[in-house]
Amino acid sequence: MRVTITGGGGFLGQRVARRLAQAGHLGGRPITGLTLFDIAAPPAPAASFPVASIAGDVADLPPAVIPPGTDVVFHLAAVVSAAAEADYELGRRVNLRGTDAVVDACRRLGRAPRLVFTSSVASFSAGPGEVVGTATRQVPANSYGAQKAAAELILADATRRGFLDAVVLRLPTVSIRPGRPNQAASSFVSSILREPLNGEEAELPVPDDFRLWIASPAHATDWLLHAAVLDTAAMGLDRSVNPPGLTVSVGEMLVALEAARPGAAALVRRVAAPRIEAIVATWPARFDPARALALGFAPHGTLEALIGEFVAETRRKNRAGGAIVQHGAIGEI
Amino acid sequence: MRVTITGGGGFLGQRVARRLAQAGHLGGRPITGLTLFDIAAPPAPAASFPVASIAGDVADLPPAVIPPGTDVVFHLAAVVSAAAEADYELGRRVNLRGTDAVVDACRRLGRAPRLVFTSSVASFSAGPGEVVGTATRQVPANSYGAQKAAAELILADATRRGFLDAVVLRLPTVSIRPGRPNQAASSFVSSILREPLNGEEAELPVPDDFRLWIASPAHATDWLLHAAVLDTAAMGLDRSVNPPGLTVSVGEMLVALEAARPGAAALVRRVAAPRIEAIVATWPARFDPARALALGFAPHGTLEALIGEFVAETRRKNRAGGAIVQHGAIGEI
Repeated sequence: MRVTITGGGGFLGQRVARRLAQAGHLGGRPITGLTLFDIAAPPAPAASFPVASIAGDVADLPPAVIPPGTDVVFHLAAVVSAAAEADYELGRRVNLRGTDAVVDACRRLGRAPRLVFTSSVASFSAGPGEVVGTATRQVPANSYGAQKAAAELILADATRRGFLDAVVLRLPTVSIRPGRPNQAASSFVSSILREPLNGEEAELPVPDDFRLWIASPAHATDWLLHAAVLDTAAMGLDRSVNPPGLTVSVGEMLVALEAARPGAAALVRRVAAPRIEAIVATWPARFDPARALALGFAPHGTLEALIGEFVAETRRKNRAGGAIVQHGAIGEI
Repeated sequence: MRVTITGGGGFLGQRVARRLAQAGHLGGRPITGLTLFDIAAPPAPAASFPVASIAGDVADLPPAVIPPGTDVVFHLAAVVSAAAEADYELGRRVNLRGTDAVVDACRRLGRAPRLVFTSSVASFSAGPGEVVGTATRQVPANSYGAQKAAAELILADATRRGFLDAVVLRLPTVSIRPGRPNQAASSFVSSILREPLNGEEAELPVPDDFRLWIASPAHATDWLLHAAVLDTAAMGLDRSVNPPGLTVSVGEMLVALEAARPGAAALVRRVAAPRIEAIVATWPARFDPARALALGFAPHGTLEALIGEFVAETRRKNRAGGAIVQHGAIGEI
């Protein structure tokens, strides 16, 4: 089985690559080759199969990225929220032209590969009060979400035509991401847990009763791997899935934080940031997971388990003395 | 006021152009220039203002098509259902790249022009039983519908960013179109009225209880003109409108046909055409018109009035001895 990951240098791309390298197989079939593609040549994990690392522009996709015989493509390359908002052409080029280029490359294979694509909670604008279901219309409030929703339509159509076999995951905000706070509107969703767990202060720009839809890095990676192997026969025309993310309030996050490290919640400082609040207030927080569960996506664990996962991973990394590889920003909307 | 019509040589483009030429003004402001653009240079109506006619490729839009000072763009250029299904690249190039090119041209104007865009009932796949409302998700069953739905997302985002001020009309099947039966799946929707009204036989590929969502050419043109001048302040992020089309069964169409021309209904022959029925069965027939009516779109007249409109127009044309100009196929999905 041959696998390609676009955006292979990114946070989730690297996680998927490492999981594939560790397992050596996918869906019960041995992996015979892995190609990682990103703007800069991505780090290649040690694996029992050949791993190619290619640098380039996804909108001008080098043919070697999706070579003949490719069975699965994880198309994770994207320009995320803040960047797509700051640079319209760049977002359009990577998020739409890049997707078209991947469609064309899959079509040239002559047999439809599985195509796993990451869309986002940011493609909705229902707000924290509404429950998003399978039938909910996407009315994005940002260019990133609009481009992702348009790409979903293009991939569903390409699937119907037999060019590829798409499964689109609309990812929740991934938390706890490793790294440092940044300019992403969703940065605080990781930061209010990560920094206090490390004994540092963090800024909170929304009220305690603000609700979010989140997923841990491990769950997001599990879902991507499941999307690569699930039976799509029952999906019909609709190739997009709202996975079974975790709906939490900021207050619940702070309680779980305090339980994990007593005194940590006091390190979270409330700040006024109307600009950030206005953006995140358009993201829905409640999703009906029925379709995702029926398609075999594993339910998310508890908030406590999510924090435990981060703490254990941090300890492993500290023991190994390794720095956290931090390239892209999938899941950081 | 300067106006541009892409797809200006098409059926609806020509109708809009003639209406503008006759009125001399739009929304109470005098028209100072009209530019018609299509693959072949469109016929220019006689008008009291200059009319330019330009030929070219919408995806490689000549700058003169949307010149500085443009106030309103009717973006009607499209590759319709059968053609977009037969040629994926052509559909993507015209329906998506063409829309991007129009967005870029509007953006370069430096002030947001009104952009009237035609989407379609074919962007839905709810089928004749479901009532389509403002919140209904578009899950297209054809490439034309997928490209139109994606273009809607791109235009809503371009509006939010201030590049233009879009109003998208999801047009019903336009009936009665002039001309002859053709290979479009929707051809029978005009043909079963038009041919018998002219004393000729027509083929009916669906059962009598089959329901359709239709609009007369005059109503569709009225709606396009209203979309050019309505106050968009109340539209918010959602720039798409399901206009108040007419829901009719084939049986009702045949009764109205017989009333208009006794004996005419007997000229309609039932034929088995499972391929056509499979396509049109994915198009919903019932729409909630509340939002369109609130935005000032005029309700549709009766089926009898729709037939009367065609009969009167045919008589006028026959008296004038003029052939029917028949270029594009907007509204013929």
